[in-house]
Amino acid sequence: MTLTIWTYDWVPPPPRGHVRDIRLRWACEEAGLPYTVASVRFEDRTGPDHLDRQPFAQVPALQDGDVTLFESGACLLHLAEKSEALMPHDAQGRAETLQWVIAGLNSVEMVSVPWWFIGLSQPPENPLEGWLNARLDRLNAVLSTRDHLAADRFTVADLLMADILRVPKLRAILGPFPALEAYTARITARPAFLKAHNDQMAHFAAADAARAK
Amino acid sequence: MTLTIWTYDWVPPPPRGHVRDIRLRWACEEAGLPYTVASVRFEDRTGPDHLDRQPFAQVPALQDGDVTLFESGACLLHLAEKSEALMPHDAQGRAETLQWVIAGLNSVEMVSVPWWFIGLSQPPENPLEGWLNARLDRLNAVLSTRDHLAADRFTVADLLMADILRVPKLRAILGPFPALEAYTARITARPAFLKAHNDQMAHFAAADAARAK
Repeated sequence: MTLTIWTYDWVPPPPRGHVRDIRLRWACEEAGLPYTVASVRFEDRTGPDHLDRQPFAQVPALQDGDVTLFESGACLLHLAEKSEALMPHDAQGRAETLQWVIAGLNSVEMVSVPWWFIGLSQPPENPLEGWLNARLDRLNAVLSTRDHLAADRFTVADLLMADILRVPKLRAILGPFPALEAYTARITARPAFLKAHNDQMAHFAAADAARAK
Repeated sequence: MTLTIWTYDWVPPPPRGHVRDIRLRWACEEAGLPYTVASVRFEDRTGPDHLDRQPFAQVPALQDGDVTLFESGACLLHLAEKSEALMPHDAQGRAETLQWVIAGLNSVEMVSVPWWFIGLSQPPENPLEGWLNARLDRLNAVLSTRDHLAADRFTVADLLMADILRVPKLRAILGPFPALEAYTARITARPAFLKAHNDQMAHFAAADAARAK
């Protein structure tokens, strides 16, 4: 079994540490799954080869032997099938992990990423701020009563949700949501996250060096 | 095996036909899976019983024997495991179905729903319009070359993507994307969608009648 994680060879500094291959690196580190990293040139991301791999010109994509797929959330669920470190195998544990992965993608990130995107242009008022705060408030209530989202243990749902929450945490808006602040800090203190983060930063730094030549 | 789809007992007219229990009804109809519909009073949606079932106060939730889960995307993937009518069972077919379900939730709907939400307040310019058009353009390119998203056949990924595209279609912005216009019309012409849609409309109409008494 060979796992290959596709990412860009290089990105400008701002997104480094947040490019979504980090989610797959992190999951592989948690599960002890060996993997290699393959790169598409950043400038070639809208070329036919990469659009064939990822029709929205994004990363990551995952190659698992003969199977290939894109979308970080899909890749996480695919990897979760390989290891109980990422998802329990009993029916209710699987269902909870799945529901919280999807809640991360479609109830939290569906608001937090457009909120971030709109914020880049620094409007006087962000039209998604109230909606984002409402979602964070609900999630804060959940994580005020427990340490993990699903199945009373760390799962790939925590990995994803903590990565999603890194953006509002970085923008310093988690103050009113202490359970989210603590949760994000706790989950991203895991050695597997730190390894994945360091490896991504080193990957892009190596590209800087190669391009400087 | 008993499947129960949870929805609200009543909603105001505008979202009728779009409440997300329709995705689960549709999937069950496609797969021939028997199900019943259970209701939470719309006014009780932020009460402790429903928040225990769905912490974001949304619908649907799904009960499958002893297993319960929320998030329409998670429920669709859960149902897809039960029937090859929704997802092929071979490894690459599964992976493609999964990736396109997640692409619907996290690459298309992550832009289209906040775009719709911001549009409700009728700003002179919608800050998400360019991003939404870019995503629709990529998806249009994919569906210009084939009839279905995954595995060369109808899957739950088409069910979800077509339901997602119903909103921009209704807002009449699919004109520049003829493949998306045709795809949405074709997929939502399936008898299982029409049955699910009629059943949802009848469910809320019955609540009007009961409340008028």
